Amino acid sequence: MRPPLIEAVPNFSEGRDTARITRIVRRVEETPGIEVLDLHSDPDHHRSVLTLWGPPGPVVEAMMELARACVEEIDLNQHQGVHPRIGALDVVPLIPVRGITRRELVQPALELARRLAEELSLPVYLYADLAQSEGRRELAAIRRGGFEGLREKMRDPAWQPDFGPPTPHPTSGATCVGVRGYLVAYNLYLATSDLAVAREIAARIRSRDGGPPGVKALGFALPTAGAVQVSMNLTEPERTTPLMVRRLVEELAEQFGTRVTHGELVGMVPAEVVEAMLRQSFADNFLAEKILDWRRWQEK
Amino acid sequence: MRPPLIEAVPNFSEGRDTARITRIVRRVEETPGIEVLDLHSDPDHHRSVLTLWGPPGPVVEAMMELARACVEEIDLNQHQGVHPRIGALDVVPLIPVRGITRRELVQPALELARRLAEELSLPVYLYADLAQSEGRRELAAIRRGGFEGLREKMRDPAWQPDFGPPTPHPTSGATCVGVRGYLVAYNLYLATSDLAVAREIAARIRSRDGGPPGVKALGFALPTAGAVQVSMNLTEPERTTPLMVRRLVEELAEQFGTRVTHGELVGMVPAEVVEAMLRQSFADNFLAEKILDWRRWQEK
Repeated sequence: MRPPLIEAVPNFSEGRDTARITRIVRRVEETPGIEVLDLHSDPDHHRSVLTLWGPPGPVVEAMMELARACVEEIDLNQHQGVHPRIGALDVVPLIPVRGITRRELVQPALELARRLAEELSLPVYLYADLAQSEGRRELAAIRRGGFEGLREKMRDPAWQPDFGPPTPHPTSGATCVGVRGYLVAYNLYLATSDLAVAREIAARIRSRDGGPPGVKALGFALPTAGAVQVSMNLTEPERTTPLMVRRLVEELAEQFGTRVTHGELVGMVPAEVVEAMLRQSFADNFLAEKILDWRRWQEK
Repeated sequence: MRPPLIEAVPNFSEGRDTARITRIVRRVEETPGIEVLDLHSDPDHHRSVLTLWGPPGPVVEAMMELARACVEEIDLNQHQGVHPRIGALDVVPLIPVRGITRRELVQPALELARRLAEELSLPVYLYADLAQSEGRRELAAIRRGGFEGLREKMRDPAWQPDFGPPTPHPTSGATCVGVRGYLVAYNLYLATSDLAVAREIAARIRSRDGGPPGVKALGFALPTAGAVQVSMNLTEPERTTPLMVRRLVEELAEQFGTRVTHGELVGMVPAEVVEAMLRQSFADNFLAEKILDWRRWQEK
């Protein structure tokens, strides 16, 4: 029987110093039993998104190693980036891949949360499937105010952490831990430096403001890239695919007298989403198993 | 060491009688050592495209079984379809996948051609890499005139077959055998029944008439589907991707007051082409290994 397999997509607050990023990621890679799938670092976000997978036990160990490395390497008091964050290890989403349900993943995820608090004195907020109240389901609510506002925010009894000390870690802030399903993290770059345009487009495509289902979006200025960006999490990516959202953003960009220069995938994309996109754009009868190299020759 | 792996994409002239198609395909499936990947049957083309793979020896055996089944089951004198054809087993393209070059595949392909002639009395034309003269490189030239014109065409010494008898098989015509690289067979359906529109669009996108590189195209009327079709072979599908061609056809369709209703992939598509399409339409940094389910978890 194959062991259960989960994915972790931790986000940590270093996106510029490649030597530091390499040291941090190496600690994860050296954890037995896991495999790193992707690393996406952005200097303007000043943030890295790591994607890895393995059985729950090794993934929890790898996340503990990552947290230790982040506490050692990162000082949020010295950190400025365009992406909202409250922690050196800002957020650890855990996602079932195979042989385990979201419900069954709650237990190992809570174990990780407890250990982050006990072993590293980090305040931990539980979000998504782990949220203990409706107001903590969305990462955006927990992160509002950022690291800079966290000390003040935590004075409010409503914002006591689910695990750990009642005040921020002095250099590492707090960490969010959640269990969720797949999402696609997707950025579109615009041929303008006008942040207001990116923000307005982000507002118009957001589900909660009347956009299509499963779209979370923010507009960012990217001084290093010399552009602005609509940065999205697509939480129902088979229903509202990245291609659908891109077409919408392209239309809105045109209305604002600009255009989309390119798209960027952060991390991995599920095969079902690739299938849905290629059915929409290429061939209605497309299936992932029609990719020749996808099929493996079975020796007989 | 892994054995060399090749793909065969035989086209045979039965696309309507599902019982007959099943009998024919079963003979291929029962050949030891090969795996059938895809079957695409079209009633208007009155033609099926089978995709299979395996080592060269088993694939040649499978093609002999297929040819025997086609000779037994198909009578071209009773056959009418919109797609050009000269044979019951009309064409057998062989494509290297792994561990074998196009040059090395010539020998097994010639062995197949020789056996089709000797064991089944089929005239065989060699095309693509196997072509013995420039005029036989393109399938379209060999097929011009169809089964109906084949007896007359073969009276011309220039059109003697490369193997087999100097006259058509009475019910099975002749068979083309070739070695080539990957191509993508791709159809676009238009929201009109005007065949002239499909033919004009096909003419405008064809490489030899000034269209982008690697595009072969024909316009077909599809009475069963109640539509017309631009039917294409894309022979440089990483350079001129199906998405690029679809956009071109969409623009031309609009000029003719119609539109593309859907796209259809015939057979398989190489991963490199999927990558190229998703880089163009979705994310510039897309790679096939970013498909989560594409990656296999390596037990450690």
